[in-house]
Amino acid sequence: MRAVDWVDGKVCFIDQTRLPGQECVVETSDHRTVAEAIRVLRIRGAPAIGVAAAFAMVLPLQAFPPASTDWEGEWQEAHDLLTRSRPTAVNLFNALSAMKRLVETLRGSGAGHARGVLLEEARKLQQQDIEACAQIGSRGAALLPDGALVLTHCNTGALATAGEGTALAVIKTAARQGKVRGVFVDETRPLFQGARLTMWELQREGIPATLITDGTAGSVLRDGKISAVLVGADRIAQNGDAANKIGTYPLAVLALYHHVPFYVAAPVSTFDSSALSGSDIPIELRNPDDIVKIGNTAIAPEGATVFAPAFDVTPAHLITAIITEHAVLSPPFDRSIARMLTQSAEAG
Amino acid sequence: MRAVDWVDGKVCFIDQTRLPGQECVVETSDHRTVAEAIRVLRIRGAPAIGVAAAFAMVLPLQAFPPASTDWEGEWQEAHDLLTRSRPTAVNLFNALSAMKRLVETLRGSGAGHARGVLLEEARKLQQQDIEACAQIGSRGAALLPDGALVLTHCNTGALATAGEGTALAVIKTAARQGKVRGVFVDETRPLFQGARLTMWELQREGIPATLITDGTAGSVLRDGKISAVLVGADRIAQNGDAANKIGTYPLAVLALYHHVPFYVAAPVSTFDSSALSGSDIPIELRNPDDIVKIGNTAIAPEGATVFAPAFDVTPAHLITAIITEHAVLSPPFDRSIARMLTQSAEAG
Repeated sequence: MRAVDWVDGKVCFIDQTRLPGQECVVETSDHRTVAEAIRVLRIRGAPAIGVAAAFAMVLPLQAFPPASTDWEGEWQEAHDLLTRSRPTAVNLFNALSAMKRLVETLRGSGAGHARGVLLEEARKLQQQDIEACAQIGSRGAALLPDGALVLTHCNTGALATAGEGTALAVIKTAARQGKVRGVFVDETRPLFQGARLTMWELQREGIPATLITDGTAGSVLRDGKISAVLVGADRIAQNGDAANKIGTYPLAVLALYHHVPFYVAAPVSTFDSSALSGSDIPIELRNPDDIVKIGNTAIAPEGATVFAPAFDVTPAHLITAIITEHAVLSPPFDRSIARMLTQSAEAG
Repeated sequence: MRAVDWVDGKVCFIDQTRLPGQECVVETSDHRTVAEAIRVLRIRGAPAIGVAAAFAMVLPLQAFPPASTDWEGEWQEAHDLLTRSRPTAVNLFNALSAMKRLVETLRGSGAGHARGVLLEEARKLQQQDIEACAQIGSRGAALLPDGALVLTHCNTGALATAGEGTALAVIKTAARQGKVRGVFVDETRPLFQGARLTMWELQREGIPATLITDGTAGSVLRDGKISAVLVGADRIAQNGDAANKIGTYPLAVLALYHHVPFYVAAPVSTFDSSALSGSDIPIELRNPDDIVKIGNTAIAPEGATVFAPAFDVTPAHLITAIITEHAVLSPPFDRSIARMLTQSAEAG
């Protein structure tokens, strides 16, 4: 299963808003369809958004004859549209920047050539993410004890990445090593990615999973059996502050209170070299309807005022370690992150 | 508005499962209808459950001719049925015990006489709860600063009691005193009592309220503007450990972490003189369907394993004060609770 892929000149993606009820694959050669899919969370998960945006940036070039050289204006418009699709996951902007840098070297080239170069870059980003997931999985699995009971939030699996996932790749890898006794899955309000997507992925993998409401995590942690809390991230600042799905920060506080390690798993594409701390990370506010309407059911009186941030920021000092494809980063994160980013830039 | 009342020989109650969409009042002379209403949360809120059960215990007597004296067997069956309706809220058992003690003094009396005595007792319990709510409201309001921003969980208002509420009575009283700048309301999964009921009550009272998902409370507390977290309770042990709607315990941990006072508001009928600590409080497990189905929408794959406790226990050491109708209790709670219960027994 691939959440997002490039097949025969089109972007293909699973419409995640229809899961787990329907497994619906959308194929499109229109970048606007991808931008809209990101906006309404048909495509979601920071690394998957990055890969989807990269592939989407190939599509505008296909509308031009191969020899045409006047594609840059339209390409730039498409780029700007994708830029506005969602604000918090930095993988989106990192992928768009990589494509943009490449386009600047392609000025005056024919659309056919440019298409080939951009597609190669997008495929490279996809491949990097697949490999990052595998590395994160094995590095993270080494941190878990035998018989681990893990608590996770949102969806950080194959649906959220190009590969096996981030936090969920750790769980899957550890499960293949026979180390995982079970997984508690926060349903993850408002959009139920834990209930809808993570439960679905774990069921397919045959990993024992128990669904809980977000407010039940406290009781589960208090019970004293959880080995680790494992989450993903949408953007990590230079000091280690990590933005992730709303409800992550309270989990981190609860993990600290119960002396349970709190791990963030994320590829290098999730780090924001321009954000010094969490306060530099823009937090998306969702539509109140995300909260007050579930299917056809209204759960609040009409006219209710709603505060609906999609993310919260977990301060670095609550994070035990950040699991990346290159290394497991330990505090102090400002230093370990700077070192890793330097090494990864040199290697790349 | 009264969530539960006695009108013309019948128990009348608002079907809270239909709020906020429909305001549907049920009238019944069948105690089984009341037991079922408690079981499926048409009637909910610990004090309201107690009052409803007391009124329900009058109903079986009405099926007998006034002079009939062979009513006790059927009355006992009705009593046992009500006892099994829900396990955690101790107000239910405290009310049923009060009625049962009275029945033991009425053996051999005519059904008409017994009915009168029991109805008087039920009305007394109702009146006590109305007065308790008022006292809790004014004692609690005195704890809040001017311009208070309050965070609350579940519904602890007129729908949960015979009077104005417990935690919500504090908020309403303080609002009338001009002290409340706003209320953040946890939606309160799985059954959305915060979104459906508390938002509805606060809207009717004209108190500015903002709905959040349970996982957003951490961000709101971190923002540093919350003056107090105010919740109710379903059962309080002798040491001050308090069972309340699932999601309360994590709020208490978050309040501690952010140095925000955490207040529990509850009438004396919520104290369990036989529970030494929270571990003596039975925690109801709800049907998984409460979590995985919302209206007609399934939010998890079929066959998902679900852990669905309806309540959690907040340990006494996380509670700043317990607001009762007789006093605001401070730590050490074992002493302050024992003193209050002794005084209240002497007064009663």
